[in-house]
Amino acid sequence: MTGADIPIDELNDLVTAPIAESMNFLNEIAQEYPDAVSFAAGRPYEGYFDLDDVHRYLDVYRDHVRARFGGDERRVTSHLMQYGRTKGIINDLVARNLAVDEKISVDPEAIVVTVGCQEALYLTLRALRRTDRDAVLAVMPSYVGMAGAAHLADMPLVPVDGTAGALRPDRLVTAIEQARAAGLRPRAVYVMADFANPSGASLGLADRRDLLEVSAEHDVLLLEDNPYGLFHGDREQPPTLKALDTDRRVVYLGTFAKTCMPGTRVGYVVADQTVGAPDGTATLLADEIAKLKSMLTVNTPPLAQAVIGGRLLAHDGSLRAATARERRIYQANLAQLLAGLERRFPPGSEPAVTWNRPDGGFFLTLTVPFPAGDDQLRHSARAHDVLWMPMHHFHGDGRPRPTIRLSFSHLSPAQIELGLDRLAAFVAEQHRS
Amino acid sequence: MTGADIPIDELNDLVTAPIAESMNFLNEIAQEYPDAVSFAAGRPYEGYFDLDDVHRYLDVYRDHVRARFGGDERRVTSHLMQYGRTKGIINDLVARNLAVDEKISVDPEAIVVTVGCQEALYLTLRALRRTDRDAVLAVMPSYVGMAGAAHLADMPLVPVDGTAGALRPDRLVTAIEQARAAGLRPRAVYVMADFANPSGASLGLADRRDLLEVSAEHDVLLLEDNPYGLFHGDREQPPTLKALDTDRRVVYLGTFAKTCMPGTRVGYVVADQTVGAPDGTATLLADEIAKLKSMLTVNTPPLAQAVIGGRLLAHDGSLRAATARERRIYQANLAQLLAGLERRFPPGSEPAVTWNRPDGGFFLTLTVPFPAGDDQLRHSARAHDVLWMPMHHFHGDGRPRPTIRLSFSHLSPAQIELGLDRLAAFVAEQHRS
Repeated sequence: MTGADIPIDELNDLVTAPIAESMNFLNEIAQEYPDAVSFAAGRPYEGYFDLDDVHRYLDVYRDHVRARFGGDERRVTSHLMQYGRTKGIINDLVARNLAVDEKISVDPEAIVVTVGCQEALYLTLRALRRTDRDAVLAVMPSYVGMAGAAHLADMPLVPVDGTAGALRPDRLVTAIEQARAAGLRPRAVYVMADFANPSGASLGLADRRDLLEVSAEHDVLLLEDNPYGLFHGDREQPPTLKALDTDRRVVYLGTFAKTCMPGTRVGYVVADQTVGAPDGTATLLADEIAKLKSMLTVNTPPLAQAVIGGRLLAHDGSLRAATARERRIYQANLAQLLAGLERRFPPGSEPAVTWNRPDGGFFLTLTVPFPAGDDQLRHSARAHDVLWMPMHHFHGDGRPRPTIRLSFSHLSPAQIELGLDRLAAFVAEQHRS
Repeated sequence: MTGADIPIDELNDLVTAPIAESMNFLNEIAQEYPDAVSFAAGRPYEGYFDLDDVHRYLDVYRDHVRARFGGDERRVTSHLMQYGRTKGIINDLVARNLAVDEKISVDPEAIVVTVGCQEALYLTLRALRRTDRDAVLAVMPSYVGMAGAAHLADMPLVPVDGTAGALRPDRLVTAIEQARAAGLRPRAVYVMADFANPSGASLGLADRRDLLEVSAEHDVLLLEDNPYGLFHGDREQPPTLKALDTDRRVVYLGTFAKTCMPGTRVGYVVADQTVGAPDGTATLLADEIAKLKSMLTVNTPPLAQAVIGGRLLAHDGSLRAATARERRIYQANLAQLLAGLERRFPPGSEPAVTWNRPDGGFFLTLTVPFPAGDDQLRHSARAHDVLWMPMHHFHGDGRPRPTIRLSFSHLSPAQIELGLDRLAAFVAEQHRS
């Protein structure tokens, strides 16, 4: 460390934690191998992205605000370009979207608009962390950003055994009881009920109802994260946990990154739980979360919110209708990926490769007959020009596993075929060696 | 607390800390009394705000990226609308701006573009917090967001006595020594050298050089926050601490909220300090800060960065030139406020009211002959239709003081006169009672 200004062990130990390396990896790998076919990145399809739409959405939102403010241009411009309200400026439009697309009925004041879902997750966990005994639970493997937010919020993350990536209510009860026995206080359970990242797994209606019961019985909140629910197949998904929630057991985390565009970084949290003060007054959990947000990012960029607001207005509140084109792309890609895997790894053949068959979303889980870690990925990138995501990043322990996350959301049919050829060559080579 | 879902004392204790109330207050008070004259909000002048400029800046930046990517439209759109690099996408333009306007020479890779300066502050403090002994120092009164970030980062804030709001190098040494004696480890000193919020005070060149010496001698970094430096009077300000920094002692925090518009929420941190790993490799502090950012907001909205990038390109990197009109407004407002105070509170008259005379910025400090707390402010709003900022919010202890922050940045000449009349009536009334 000679000559450096700061030895790294004088910085927060999070910067050297496996989770930090994982998240960097997830962010940067696509840039390291720009010409490889990438099954790694969980990016939305960008073939329909058009900056002209951004201009249009901004104007649609401006017209909307103009009407609301009775043509007072000074107020319109201030609303868009000055500091905004900490909780957000498009809360009414977000609430309408939830009503139209998800049959979730929620007071706009129970919503905090955030810088992506990531900030929503961090703020929610930070708000729920009272002491170092407060813990969050999640099925493993889980979205790596959740572990990152938990680390940053200084909250222990208790893993729950899953079945093929899906959170099982009975195992959740076991994990809650074990965590309590270990002196922890389980406050919340992170759950992606629809086409989970990374596994692709979804929960059936009975499991959803059971989870709500466990939540009530064991006094833990459910943090439902739902970035992929709209991207289903021919059948719609069962209702979200929040749509089934009659008792304010669910904090709902949303993002417009997949249904609109990542470039605005607009997400939100619905936190309609009441919070009681000793003097008998009550606020919403959203209000308490907003207090922390005012110390973190002050407010979510009003101009970015305006772009999303304009898109919501342009489609009468429904992103389900607005993303019909993308949904067809994702469905076609998924069908092609499944058929392509079938052709290249037929049942009973060697090497033995298996996979799950989600009905939608962005991801599936591939199981290969060797540990697939970062070294294997680097080799795959260098020698075979194909990227994929080692599943261990979603377990957070750095231990290579024989499982891989394949993303199919942002690829063309030709890229999927080319990528599968390369992936098959890589798997065959690893199997031989 | 009967009937509430969550008792407030089961949430993070920050939500009931005075700082949380302060920041909420600062954010919401303008909305509570929309028709009052407000000397309270530190908002930039919005008379020149124009949404058409936002459209134009977006297009200017698109053309710039188009040229860089050789006309590859897919890449251009992806750059603007997909997830971006954690560190940011306009780092080269920010570096050029610092070179042109501040003679600060910095590697674009040492910059992390953030969601306003607030996120930059939080991330920097969080990165520097290794153990619960690590502390940050700041002159009191200081920008309330700094205390908020320190709280959220779980870092003790050690107050340093100031002279009329200015950080004095000799008193800093005393505070560092006292903090060490109390078992703390001072890691950084927060300083606004130019037209500080809230006091309006600036540091002379000799004090700046002395602070750099103290920083080196006592091994604490200087966190220089500079939102107002460009808004000077006839004389330019002395060079920033970062411009004088030959030894990487200064972490520089910047924002485009005042020089461009708050509505994009784009800020940044320059952290060019080298960080050494045990294996002898080195990174930049910016890289370590970016790791934490990937767990917090993933990246700063590329579209918001594009708006700022376009404005920087449209003005050839110089915001000094681009904000000449605003600077004249701020200077005229300041002159009018000073003259108006002089007329209403002439020397030797009763009630005895005094104030400092900054050369620029957004704020000055008014001293009145009674404690001016939140109760007085509420009365002033209700009965006199004039808002101002009780200075205790910037001390963070909730103890009313006879000092007030007056902001003059976003008012018209007529509003200043009307506001001063009302303020004088309020002060006379308080003095009588």
